[in-house]
Amino acid sequence: MSKMRSEILSQGKVLAQAIPQQLRDAEAVRTVLGGQPLRFVSIVARGTSDHAAVYGQYLLQYANGLPVGLATPSIHTLYHKQLNMEGGLVIGISQSGQGTDVIETLEQARTAGASTVAITNDLSSPLAQMAQLAIGLYAGAEESVAATKTFTTSLSALICLGKALGAPEELLEGFEELPEKMDATMNALDAPIAQFASTLKDAQDLVSLGRGFQYPIALEAALKLKETCYLMAMGMSSADFLHGPIAIVERQMPILMFGAPGSTSQMQVELAQRLRDLGANLAVIGSDKELLAKGSAAFPVEFDVTEPLLPLLTILGGQLLSCNLASAKGLDPDKPRGLQKVTKTR
Amino acid sequence: MSKMRSEILSQGKVLAQAIPQQLRDAEAVRTVLGGQPLRFVSIVARGTSDHAAVYGQYLLQYANGLPVGLATPSIHTLYHKQLNMEGGLVIGISQSGQGTDVIETLEQARTAGASTVAITNDLSSPLAQMAQLAIGLYAGAEESVAATKTFTTSLSALICLGKALGAPEELLEGFEELPEKMDATMNALDAPIAQFASTLKDAQDLVSLGRGFQYPIALEAALKLKETCYLMAMGMSSADFLHGPIAIVERQMPILMFGAPGSTSQMQVELAQRLRDLGANLAVIGSDKELLAKGSAAFPVEFDVTEPLLPLLTILGGQLLSCNLASAKGLDPDKPRGLQKVTKTR
Repeated sequence: MSKMRSEILSQGKVLAQAIPQQLRDAEAVRTVLGGQPLRFVSIVARGTSDHAAVYGQYLLQYANGLPVGLATPSIHTLYHKQLNMEGGLVIGISQSGQGTDVIETLEQARTAGASTVAITNDLSSPLAQMAQLAIGLYAGAEESVAATKTFTTSLSALICLGKALGAPEELLEGFEELPEKMDATMNALDAPIAQFASTLKDAQDLVSLGRGFQYPIALEAALKLKETCYLMAMGMSSADFLHGPIAIVERQMPILMFGAPGSTSQMQVELAQRLRDLGANLAVIGSDKELLAKGSAAFPVEFDVTEPLLPLLTILGGQLLSCNLASAKGLDPDKPRGLQKVTKTR
Repeated sequence: MSKMRSEILSQGKVLAQAIPQQLRDAEAVRTVLGGQPLRFVSIVARGTSDHAAVYGQYLLQYANGLPVGLATPSIHTLYHKQLNMEGGLVIGISQSGQGTDVIETLEQARTAGASTVAITNDLSSPLAQMAQLAIGLYAGAEESVAATKTFTTSLSALICLGKALGAPEELLEGFEELPEKMDATMNALDAPIAQFASTLKDAQDLVSLGRGFQYPIALEAALKLKETCYLMAMGMSSADFLHGPIAIVERQMPILMFGAPGSTSQMQVELAQRLRDLGANLAVIGSDKELLAKGSAAFPVEFDVTEPLLPLLTILGGQLLSCNLASAKGLDPDKPRGLQKVTKTR
């Protein structure tokens, strides 16, 4: 079994071990930042961690009512500009804690008066040491180049951070039951997704779409497919896709949609119908029954969880698809060409 | 001549007419917001306007030292969450002023206590009427579905806004001479880019890269290529591309890089060398001589302008490539399949 597959399958167990420790780390955040009004929140990250950052942007807006943006590292690391950061909170996410741009951006933010929180799998890393507060991933060493368990534990770290900053309990209800639901979801999806992957073995490109909390999942699934299957996989918001990019859709083009029932469903169902009318090969992963019904392939996530929690289940479908498709293509997902586990950019 | 081509070529003249009017609109912004400390800035837009928004994020951070993020419309329009916006500035960009999600996001921000500015080509549109302040594009009616002159005038509107909010004069020095430099750049680039486009007529995918101020240009060039040539064109930050996506590079894959000399040059030159070593078909547009030297095709922008102004010249290369490649592929750039001029999403 590839390391990637083994790490994907470990995620329920890993999350169960991580949650109590992340909740404890988050208590320290609550103590320091709990009462303080935050001017804004900015999140800085790269690659898979950047998709966790997009999730964090949705979560802290949705559950905490904070204005949240994503940082642009070059402003700090290359242009050396100082922003007015007083009263802001800057969150850096890096599994290794070695990401140069993440560290430098947090460092400048701290100097400029912002509070800083690191989210990392290595609490002795430079990032964790530099930040005022840290939440660990507690994922164990990740040996696969393609990050999986450090993605889901980054999402759970952000959930713990949201709780520490006062997110209403009911929006995140069921958080501690996610590990067993992850296991059950993987059990249910693995074989059908492997079967579907075999039909895509000659695919060269793919579009991956989602809206709201499923948008970062669409981005992350596309990244896994790039890294392990060398697909030209384009991850986009379902809304942005309508503003021009939909012109690229050809008959039989593989399109993956991630969906949740509720607020985002109607626009996604309408888009799915349009994509089917254009002849796309549409696969749907998620718990939105109407959307699933539009797919030529459908991978249901059978649990009724709150919207901010669903990404921890739907991403499993994207990860399993990448790993299974790499195998179908005769590629070793543990040896993505040209990549190393830690990439440093400034 | 296609409408798109005619509108591309009109941009120098259009900008010359727009600048004095945009500066006048911006004076009203200065009067209302000038002295006021801003808690944060958030920009909301879709499609081409969203790439102007990314530019605005860089500009207002670089030149004004403000923390700037991009809004996530679904939080407002679908999830109906109220953020704490007191003391913030929210900028909505929509050439038509009809973009439903842009209007709703601005409306909620205004209700929640933020200052609001609309940037639009229609000052009688719902967006302009709803916002507290507006800066017009003064681009005249844009008939081509693929936006070009409303993109460059959105950038100039943001420059005027930056000036109104106190950007140091020297960072934007030469702004009013841009129109003639745009004309000269198009004169210089049109024929060589048409020649290059003919070599790409069978291309199906392409990667478009840039860093800092050239990152939104890479995104916008990719969007034009999707809309008018149906290319699977992926726009990314040169830094993000290193964090996984570089695995997709195959021999002969067309890659477009946009570059400026100075702060972002070194990392881009290193990436360009790596892409050449991987056998990519690398084309470079910009004024970074070292980067241009790495390209198998090079399209120099010969003017020495400040870094925030260069995007108004480099995007011309991307627009001309899209329009010329559409012709080379036998496609009508004025009739992109499945698109209408105004797309409304919520």
